[in-house]
Amino acid sequence: MSPTISTPPAMLADRFKTLRYDEGEQAVVILNRRKYPFTVEYVTLRTVEEVAQSIENMTVQGGPPLAYVAGLGLAMAARDLSGIAHPAAYLEQAAQRLLATRPTADDLHHIVPAALNVALDALHQDGDPFRAALDYVNGEITRGNEVSRKCGQYAARLLNDGDQVLTHCIAGAALCWMLWTAKQDGKHITLIGSETRPYFQGARLTAASAQEMGIPFTLITDGMSAHLMSVGKIDKFICAADRITLDGHITNKIGTLQHAIAAHHFGQPFYVLGYDGPDPNTETGTDIPIEERDPVEVFHARGETGTVRTAIHGIDGYYPAFDITPPHLIGAICTDRGIFAPGAIRDYFHTEPTA
Amino acid sequence: MSPTISTPPAMLADRFKTLRYDEGEQAVVILNRRKYPFTVEYVTLRTVEEVAQSIENMTVQGGPPLAYVAGLGLAMAARDLSGIAHPAAYLEQAAQRLLATRPTADDLHHIVPAALNVALDALHQDGDPFRAALDYVNGEITRGNEVSRKCGQYAARLLNDGDQVLTHCIAGAALCWMLWTAKQDGKHITLIGSETRPYFQGARLTAASAQEMGIPFTLITDGMSAHLMSVGKIDKFICAADRITLDGHITNKIGTLQHAIAAHHFGQPFYVLGYDGPDPNTETGTDIPIEERDPVEVFHARGETGTVRTAIHGIDGYYPAFDITPPHLIGAICTDRGIFAPGAIRDYFHTEPTA
Repeated sequence: MSPTISTPPAMLADRFKTLRYDEGEQAVVILNRRKYPFTVEYVTLRTVEEVAQSIENMTVQGGPPLAYVAGLGLAMAARDLSGIAHPAAYLEQAAQRLLATRPTADDLHHIVPAALNVALDALHQDGDPFRAALDYVNGEITRGNEVSRKCGQYAARLLNDGDQVLTHCIAGAALCWMLWTAKQDGKHITLIGSETRPYFQGARLTAASAQEMGIPFTLITDGMSAHLMSVGKIDKFICAADRITLDGHITNKIGTLQHAIAAHHFGQPFYVLGYDGPDPNTETGTDIPIEERDPVEVFHARGETGTVRTAIHGIDGYYPAFDITPPHLIGAICTDRGIFAPGAIRDYFHTEPTA
Repeated sequence: MSPTISTPPAMLADRFKTLRYDEGEQAVVILNRRKYPFTVEYVTLRTVEEVAQSIENMTVQGGPPLAYVAGLGLAMAARDLSGIAHPAAYLEQAAQRLLATRPTADDLHHIVPAALNVALDALHQDGDPFRAALDYVNGEITRGNEVSRKCGQYAARLLNDGDQVLTHCIAGAALCWMLWTAKQDGKHITLIGSETRPYFQGARLTAASAQEMGIPFTLITDGMSAHLMSVGKIDKFICAADRITLDGHITNKIGTLQHAIAAHHFGQPFYVLGYDGPDPNTETGTDIPIEERDPVEVFHARGETGTVRTAIHGIDGYYPAFDITPPHLIGAICTDRGIFAPGAIRDYFHTEPTA
């Protein structure tokens, strides 16, 4: 471990750079991840409904970031209780609205109920529900940044000098820490990013993070990874997970399963950046709800200068936003407490946190 | 077989609808496949260089169609020999220019040399090199239409009522014949098309063909097929091949290998629409030259209303246009002479053509 390593110079490596409660604005202010890095635009969210919609329309995306924003939304609800006849019911309703935004990633479904409980406790004890919830969420963001650092530093151990690493979608702060740690350790890593249709997170967010850190980045389309593996241009596949089950399944952005199967076929390792480990409430893959989004996104491409319709009219489309990869296709799950075999990921809960 | 079946009502089912030598214009006139079906635009090509560029920039695409257009380009060169000091050398130079356009599909590399030989023979025998080459190419287009019909009709035998069939890129006239034959036979087939980045052939050309024939079509992105297989939404994967080797490898549009590996992983069949069989000059997969195109296409999406940049600036990109699928991932290769196991595809040459 290299705990004294410098912070990766990438926007997405520190969640406080992309989302916060702004005391002056009295609002949640978030980086618009649909436009970044073409446009560095911060969006101000003043109501629970605005927060919920920013999650649904992916202005904020990624399991932990959207969970923090939802938590800050709950804090805003707790701020606005004066004159509310039934404040507990009001808070519970706000939590329900926020929880209904996206079903697949587990962080949202941990942080919103926990923030609700903190606020309700303060309410019942004549404390300040807003400050209590805000402090809780800010503590979670701080903890999440530390989880990302440790997870990425563990993952960096699995990289060899010269590795060509495939990634998919945006693996966030832990990916930044992994790449930055490897670079500090003198390992030359090339990141190969699949563009990740329909939102192009790979072509925008991951590419930008790599560029900000000076990591060579090569963009491919989502259908190219197997070919690159077949000709020796990919050494490892590494991505994040939106949820990890107790028996070692992971869910991640649609397309992950295809890359994982290809890696397995060609005998190349698939490692997961598992942040703070499995969801204690999800036993196996079939217990994960897979979000299905509006297929209109599959008919369009959104870019730097606008949006174009890429499909003909009058057809059907299908847009499952995530897929599930079983443990036998996964080589290792990296977490803030170390590196686990997928089948032994329950051990996470019996492992002491490390520095 | 249903040789009396009606012709599929799809533009791409009959090559004469999309490319021809126009006697009035004295030019090659082709459907612009980069814009179809958003715009039905025909492009007039008056020189060998214009023909070559239309192939390079994919105004015409698909192994047989682009080969026919190249053959018509060679015929145009044979038309313009008056005043040329060394007509044979002139024709050979034209052939070299046309052959240099795209390396992977074998049709181009059969039809252009054959058209050249026909023209040279006519030249040496004081015949009309232009008419000889044009008649040869038109005969090949007629033959190709018949090959497509037979290949598609054989492939339709492999479909069951209710099948959800994944396809990739545009499998052309044989796909139309397969789907139309199955429909005439009372089989209800749903076509699931991967959009096929970066050119979106699936979202445009394949979707249009299905729509023109009244075949239900569902569009997905290139990374979704494995997930759909994992949840039982795909029964078969069927696509074309730009070249088939004597030992049963196939090359096709980049992304095919990934779908084939996923199908193999989930125990679902992968069938190839192999038109007129293997290339007698290509022994195995490593003998196939894989075209690498300008990565600028990977940074953009072209749609109905223009083009948007989808990737950040200052990164690398990689665009191999094809990949190679080995025979052990292929369930059957359908041709105009019947259905072959990939390992026995050499038998094609010992099989009599059928009606």
